[in-house]
Amino acid sequence: MLTGIPVSEGFGIGRAIVIKKEINIKYYKPNSTEEEIEKFKEAIEKAKQEISEIKEQAEQNLGANKAMIFDAHLLILDDPEFVKMVKEKIQQGTNAEWAVAETAEFYANLLASLDDEYMKERANDIKDVSERLIRILHGASALYIDLKNIPEGSVIIAEDLTPSETAQMDKTKVVGFVTQQGGKTSHAAIIARTYEIPAVAGVKGVLEYVKDGDIVIVDGYQGIVLINPDQQVVEEYEKRMKEEKKKKEELKRLVVSEVKTGDGRKVKVYSNIGFPEEVEIALKNGAEGIGLFRTEFLFMNRNSPPSEDEQFTAYKYVLEKMKGKPVIIRTLDIGGDKNISYLNIENELNPFLGYRAIRLCLNNKELFKTQLKALLRASVYGNLKIMFPMITTANEVKQAKEILQEARDELKKKGIDLCDKIEVGIMIETPAAALASDILADEVDFFSIGTNDLIQYTLAIDRTNEKVSYLYDPLNLSVLRLIKMTVDNAHKKGKEVGVCGEMASDEKAVPVLIGIGVDELSVNPSKILRVKKKIENTNYISEKEKLEEYLLGN
Amino acid sequence: MLTGIPVSEGFGIGRAIVIKKEINIKYYKPNSTEEEIEKFKEAIEKAKQEISEIKEQAEQNLGANKAMIFDAHLLILDDPEFVKMVKEKIQQGTNAEWAVAETAEFYANLLASLDDEYMKERANDIKDVSERLIRILHGASALYIDLKNIPEGSVIIAEDLTPSETAQMDKTKVVGFVTQQGGKTSHAAIIARTYEIPAVAGVKGVLEYVKDGDIVIVDGYQGIVLINPDQQVVEEYEKRMKEEKKKKEELKRLVVSEVKTGDGRKVKVYSNIGFPEEVEIALKNGAEGIGLFRTEFLFMNRNSPPSEDEQFTAYKYVLEKMKGKPVIIRTLDIGGDKNISYLNIENELNPFLGYRAIRLCLNNKELFKTQLKALLRASVYGNLKIMFPMITTANEVKQAKEILQEARDELKKKGIDLCDKIEVGIMIETPAAALASDILADEVDFFSIGTNDLIQYTLAIDRTNEKVSYLYDPLNLSVLRLIKMTVDNAHKKGKEVGVCGEMASDEKAVPVLIGIGVDELSVNPSKILRVKKKIENTNYISEKEKLEEYLLGN
Repeated sequence: MLTGIPVSEGFGIGRAIVIKKEINIKYYKPNSTEEEIEKFKEAIEKAKQEISEIKEQAEQNLGANKAMIFDAHLLILDDPEFVKMVKEKIQQGTNAEWAVAETAEFYANLLASLDDEYMKERANDIKDVSERLIRILHGASALYIDLKNIPEGSVIIAEDLTPSETAQMDKTKVVGFVTQQGGKTSHAAIIARTYEIPAVAGVKGVLEYVKDGDIVIVDGYQGIVLINPDQQVVEEYEKRMKEEKKKKEELKRLVVSEVKTGDGRKVKVYSNIGFPEEVEIALKNGAEGIGLFRTEFLFMNRNSPPSEDEQFTAYKYVLEKMKGKPVIIRTLDIGGDKNISYLNIENELNPFLGYRAIRLCLNNKELFKTQLKALLRASVYGNLKIMFPMITTANEVKQAKEILQEARDELKKKGIDLCDKIEVGIMIETPAAALASDILADEVDFFSIGTNDLIQYTLAIDRTNEKVSYLYDPLNLSVLRLIKMTVDNAHKKGKEVGVCGEMASDEKAVPVLIGIGVDELSVNPSKILRVKKKIENTNYISEKEKLEEYLLGN
Repeated sequence: MLTGIPVSEGFGIGRAIVIKKEINIKYYKPNSTEEEIEKFKEAIEKAKQEISEIKEQAEQNLGANKAMIFDAHLLILDDPEFVKMVKEKIQQGTNAEWAVAETAEFYANLLASLDDEYMKERANDIKDVSERLIRILHGASALYIDLKNIPEGSVIIAEDLTPSETAQMDKTKVVGFVTQQGGKTSHAAIIARTYEIPAVAGVKGVLEYVKDGDIVIVDGYQGIVLINPDQQVVEEYEKRMKEEKKKKEELKRLVVSEVKTGDGRKVKVYSNIGFPEEVEIALKNGAEGIGLFRTEFLFMNRNSPPSEDEQFTAYKYVLEKMKGKPVIIRTLDIGGDKNISYLNIENELNPFLGYRAIRLCLNNKELFKTQLKALLRASVYGNLKIMFPMITTANEVKQAKEILQEARDELKKKGIDLCDKIEVGIMIETPAAALASDILADEVDFFSIGTNDLIQYTLAIDRTNEKVSYLYDPLNLSVLRLIKMTVDNAHKKGKEVGVCGEMASDEKAVPVLIGIGVDELSVNPSKILRVKKKIENTNYISEKEKLEEYLLGN
């Protein structure tokens, strides 16, 4: 039994396909550096061609947005710094393969040292591209394993999975992913969740212990991987899978229906998504809307901000897929811990209390306005709502709305078609915003409570800090008082309130939030049906009464 | 004109005394390493003797607590690591002076690299001791300048001032300090504030521009240093000094009196102190009590926690000096950014949201209990109130009170005399505490609102981060609502509320706090009289009405 990080829920039983990538790269002094550079140039062209082909495949299978990752690969091949370093190494008298491997290692180490989970994973892109170059230089023309023709019921075991690999893979045949590297936000994890394939990442030593054809059980709930288990264990898991399937079947009826509490109060269930392609799984699981579409993915893993067109494409894609259902798109929520090189954000002593989200956007007006323009242009393709993150004062909302108006005016002047009425909302995630929610309700059309941050700031704890995470408590009296205050203030002004933090899918917290009177819960796609079920099993009035008693401190 | 950091308020005009410390340390290969080691050992003994003498002087002039810094110096001379490194360098064939200088530099760089303001300043201790050793090895037997016999009206100009230097200095003759290094918490700054000597620190290049005997104006309000100014400028400053003196004279009547608002509401004015000796200046300025005695100084700049006795001495000193006036002593408020080596606090991504203050104390029960025992033992010498920092939940208060009870029981068992009734209070500095202040009021005897942190957490900003410090606003609606909530909740249960953050001495905020109904303002000693004056000029009822209107969001 091996353990790792559970990154995609579910159980999977199947036979291992181990992807080992070992090319023995040898160092030698080439006869002619000119020839070697020529070889390298040819390899680049060949790699570009291969990547473009994979990109096309990906566009068909995964949609235009997901395929964009291959643009990043093409960019690496065009990166003058990368190319220059390889050439210099060749000129110093090494062969092309060795020069590429060394350059790739240099960049991988550099990115890995940045202490930024996202950057670390971007080191994968460099690795992916370099491996391709080395393979081409080596003379092998295809992938090591034909991932298009894997057998039914395969469990993929790998160091990590590159976008090239997952794009070519026939995912209908895959019942599990196990990777030695990676975490919740790694490429393989996102793909696994999108395709609802159970997955465990960060499983140390898995490549040593598992051989092709081994029976492997992947437990994506607990992050457990069992290798060649006893028949008894297999039967136990098969039983659990059956039960799970049955439960899922039962929940299926909830996919199409709106849900109400036992005593008839409607509570909407929306989905949080972090990538456009996740909209499919959100719909498949019965999302009544998108309660939080994070736009950070567009801004990360690149050297310059995304263009208005690029953003427009992503927003339009989700709005069209949702066919008129509400889609709340949050403007850029970045900074501090999620650094982006081209924004030149300085290191901060306390990034959670720093220069991020709306603060950064109001100070980078062109960046912000470009995003707002892309949103406005996309507005005609569905039911768009725009949401500003990390608000602390009404003044910030006013400023953001002014820039939105400027963006609208500029587009109108160009004769571009826009929705006339787009709802604008804010995240309530600072204590200041909750405490001023009566005033803020006059400025916007809706609130969405970001409970993760709200809890952290209210209790003055960083929940990622294990020395204080014991204090993190969604049901803390002060936290609930703030949420209640926010909901009451919004309702007084006829505005709706959603909750998009993890609390919205917390079994214990859902009845409490219903009792507080929230109108909408926005949760990860895989949680939608369970939350709907929970709502049905909750009695609004009794929760409300229980809560009011609790809020008094009794 | 040079500029720096204003570290002690006031204007000073006088003649420069420039303390330049330049010993030309030469490297040479000694004839005998044994002889050189012997020389080093003798120098250590001589240095210990000198330091002990200075310590005695300091005890007479500054009190036992301040003199404790020289114990740290003696500890360095006894530090086996320090001594070992010097000896090793001698054994490698260098002379003793050079070996000491190199070792000192190694430690100074090490401490300076820790990115901890306090540690950086502690590098000064090593420097002080090493300079002494080098001077002794060099054969000079006295300080470079006789600081005991400086002329009336001297402005001391130095790289920085060591405790040895300030201890020997006749401070009645000094009208200003200007240092090239240092900041608000450096030794020279603390001494300057204690003796009410205007001071500017961090003045780059001052040692180059100023010569002995130059006329220097020190503006401790604005951090300005004028060198050989025109007669006109001197006259201008003399005029301002006269005005200041007159104002001070006017305020003098407030030293003895309690103050009331124009319409007769009593508001107490207490003092914040960070070192026992500051109690003198607090009293001289008419403090009606100590609203916040920070105890961190006892725990920093050392290799192990202070003993119960050592703490007891410091607490007793302040309680006795205050002769029955209230003294609120805050238990250890440390962690994260103020690291202490022997507590092994790990680096944190967000130290302001981390493992600090009561969180750390509840998890280091013996450390905490030792402090509580020292406090309990000191309780019979005055009017002690104990205050716990960084509270977020009632549960933390209950735990802290339990440990206090344990400490009490253990001391009683030993037959030690204690006060039977000691008031216990908490800092309200997290939004959670303010929001649960009705519940917390049942647990304690008083509240003290730490506005600096409360503002930071409520607005989710680190005010030391210049990218977001523009959001720091004590008069922010949400902040004032939290303060009002806290005061109302306390008063409903008959408990008093003080404010000990910087807001309590902010000209604009004082009337607002009075309008909110706070019972006590605790401010830095130099601000006491001005705050008293401000209270007299404030009308409680009209401020209350104005505030209530503002809190409605109008």
